[in-house]
Order: sequence, then structure tokens, then C-alpha cells
Amino acid sequence: MLSSNQIKFLRSLSAKKTRNNEKLFVVEGIKLVDELLVSSCKIHSIYAIGAWIESHYTLLDRKQVDYYTITQTELERVAQLNTPNQVFAVVHQPDTNLSLNTLAGKMVLALDNVADPGNLGTIIRIADWFGIDTIICSDNTVELYNNKVVQASMGSFFRVKVRYAGLADAITQYKQLFPNQGIYAAVLGGTDLYQSDIKSPCMLVMGSESHGISADVQKLATHKVTIPPYAGSGAESLNVAVSTAILCAEVRRKG
Amino acid sequence: MLSSNQIKFLRSLSAKKTRNNEKLFVVEGIKLVDELLVSSCKIHSIYAIGAWIESHYTLLDRKQVDYYTITQTELERVAQLNTPNQVFAVVHQPDTNLSLNTLAGKMVLALDNVADPGNLGTIIRIADWFGIDTIICSDNTVELYNNKVVQASMGSFFRVKVRYAGLADAITQYKQLFPNQGIYAAVLGGTDLYQSDIKSPCMLVMGSESHGISADVQKLATHKVTIPPYAGSGAESLNVAVSTAILCAEVRRKG
Repeated sequence: MLSSNQIKFLRSLSAKKTRNNEKLFVVEGIKLVDELLVSSCKIHSIYAIGAWIESHYTLLDRKQVDYYTITQTELERVAQLNTPNQVFAVVHQPDTNLSLNTLAGKMVLALDNVADPGNLGTIIRIADWFGIDTIICSDNTVELYNNKVVQASMGSFFRVKVRYAGLADAITQYKQLFPNQGIYAAVLGGTDLYQSDIKSPCMLVMGSESHGISADVQKLATHKVTIPPYAGSGAESLNVAVSTAILCAEVRRKG
Repeated sequence: MLSSNQIKFLRSLSAKKTRNNEKLFVVEGIKLVDELLVSSCKIHSIYAIGAWIESHYTLLDRKQVDYYTITQTELERVAQLNTPNQVFAVVHQPDTNLSLNTLAGKMVLALDNVADPGNLGTIIRIADWFGIDTIICSDNTVELYNNKVVQASMGSFFRVKVRYAGLADAITQYKQLFPNQGIYAAVLGGTDLYQSDIKSPCMLVMGSESHGISADVQKLATHKVTIPPYAGSGAESLNVAVSTAILCAEVRRKG
């Protein structure tokens, strides 16, 4: 049985401030925790119902994870998901130093002030699908360890490195390191994507849902590209995750 | 001031059952209601704070809309949004008969059991961007008038026709009407999208988030296509709205 202090501690991790102070975050549900167990993330502790513990006993033992068997009622008390699914894991936040020099010859994504956690999680999943192993986020992008980001990433969370930085500074350094790798900003009113020379290696910069890419970041771009709307379309824009996917698909199509 | 009966009525529209019985739905917020006012949808009544009414008085008068000035507190009591934004409109559900014979020479989307309202709304926005004016949904697809669908569609809701049908029957009839228009099912393990002959006019069929396309629908497809993952990618799949966008973009790229 969980003590009231344990319950208090687990519940406190729903707050960004606590997560950052403790350098911890939460991973919930059978599928995500299975991905967690095969990842390189360091697990702090696991709380799960008996059936889950039984089917994972060998793995938990081999990885020497601290684990606690709890009841469904206790799980529901600590869970952040509306429909908790057997297991709740507390995980150490990994080191998140950005080393730009690993980006030679690769495609990288940069996000400027993306605010919606579902969008960030979906973009992490898109990056994973398209073989992009690093995402650079502006410091004001939504927090990576927000539960909705973790859940929406569908396990890609454990395979894609997401790093926060002053985005204009990071891009400036990137340009110095890789003068031959283009920096493509996704904007409205830029070059038609299909007329552009976009290709990997490159940096693809996506802007916020409401304001697009900030002026200081946009002026660092070497190219500005736009997904062409169908003639006569009444839509003003596409969702940022949707746009990211179309652009990544096109870069990968071109090889 | 709203009567308690009015408040009860407006709040009751958050339930699917009431919406369907009354043949009404709700549109909230400045931007969406502006799109509503220029759409062909028939408005039942509008409830808004004074500032909004003042700036829309001429339009309301011209369209002979029933409107009520309410306080911010009243707006918060009836709103379905967490952060209500000035105006709450009650709208008549339009007729939603599916007439397949309007689809000659066009690209059309079909959704099989898409369950997440945010995904349906995002797909409506994608359809609008890519000039697809009709979406056929299986009867078990999430309800169109769910508030999250309306909000996520960002006004594309008013430009794209969404129709519900027994999907296998509708596709069977479509095949008889348009034997030369391909039916492309998005699946895992199909033909590489970029090696396929996908082109408009066609029907593009997308499946549910958890189960993909049902067997009876899948067997009606003339082609099965897959968005190729990058070599070595660990991701199992892409979000259904994201996949829809990549496929629509590719069809439109090919012209």
C-alpha cells in the first residue's frame, strides 16, 4: 500500500515546477512503459497492478528497477491519464545538452514556440518515422515532459532527442558549422515547396500555431518554403504537425 | 439576462443526444462565428457579450439572427470551451444527404471509424486546404458536431461537406458509378506511395487510429498504399491526420 507521502509525491509530478526541480517525469500505460523499459532512460520507480508486475518481473529484476505493486484504486489516485492503464513509471530526465556538431550530414527539425503539447508529441512521432533523430526547440516551446507530449509521441519520445535552446543563437552556430546545409523556414507566402530545392542535409524550421516563426529566427533562414494550397482553397493554414509531416515527407521523397 | 431555462437549454447542447434530437450544434469564439456568419449554415440564435454584439450589429440585423447580449459570467456558464471567447452560437444541423454522383472527376476522402474528434477536425482542415469538398465517414466515425471537431476544423467546417454512411455500401456504389476512379486504401505494408500510381480523381480511404481500415472496406480498395518510413525508423505508424495530409499533398503534387 502506498503511504500518503508517496501518493503526494507521485501526484506532485503533474506540475511542471516539481518535474523540473526533481529532474523527473512520468510515463504511463502498458505500451509506453514497454518502450521505456527497452530505452536508455534511467527509471526512478514503477507503480503497477499485480498483473503487470507478474508479466514484467524478470525484466524489472534484470534492470534492478524499484517497483511497487499497487491497487487499481491507488493507480487511479496517482494517474495523470483519465483512463490509467496498469502502470505508472517515474523516470529521470536525461541530460539534454545540445551538441550541434552531431548534425553533420543529417536532417534536423527546429521548433519556434510550438505551444500545444499534442502538436509537440505528434511532431516527435513524425521525426521518428522520417529518421530525424534530433529536434531543437526554442526555450519558449512547450515543455517536453508535459504528460500530453509524452503520450502523443507514442514511444517515439524514447528515440528522438529533443533539446531546448535559444533558437536564434543555435541556428547562428549551426550556420557557422555547416555553411552548406540549408535552413528552410516553413512560412506562408514563400517558395512553392515543389519548386524549391529543399533536400537533406538541412534544418527545417517550423513556427508557432498562432504566430509562425519569429522575425529574428526567420531572418536566419536560407530559404522560405510554403506548402501550396489547392487553387481556390478557403483554408488559411495547416496545423503545425501536419505541415511538418508534409515537409519531412517531401525531403525524404527526394532522397 | 438569461433565464434558467435558457441556460439549461444551452448547456444541454454539450450532449450528443440533445444535439441529435434538436438537430442543433454549437459554434464558439470570435473567429469561428465570423466564418459561420458568412457560411450558408442556418443560425438558430447567438449569445454574446456587448462588445461583440456592437461590432456585429449590422450583419446580425441583415441576416435577421436572434441574438442575446449576455455577461461574461453567463457566457462562462454556458460555454463548452475552457476559455470562452465573446460569443456562443446555436446552429441548425444542415441536411447531410450523401449524393455520390457529385464526386465525378474529384478527389474524395473516406474515413473508416476515426474516433478522435481532434483528428476529424484536423482532417476537415486538411481537406479544405487541398481542395477536397466532400468527406464520407463510416457511421461509427466520431460525431461531426462534437465541439472538439468543430473547433479543430478552424472554420473549414463550413466549407467541407462531411457525410455519414455505411462505408462499404457507399464505396460499392461509388465503384459502380465511377469505375475509372481508383480507390486507394492507406495501410501498413502496401505499395510505396511514391511508387504508386495514385492520382486524382480518386477516393482515399483512411482507417481508425487503433485498428486501421476494417476488412470489409479494405477488400473494396483498388490499390493499397503506404507512406514509406525512413530506413531503420523505430516508429510503428503515423497519426491518421498526419498520414491523410501526406497522401493528399502527394496527390495534389502530381496534379
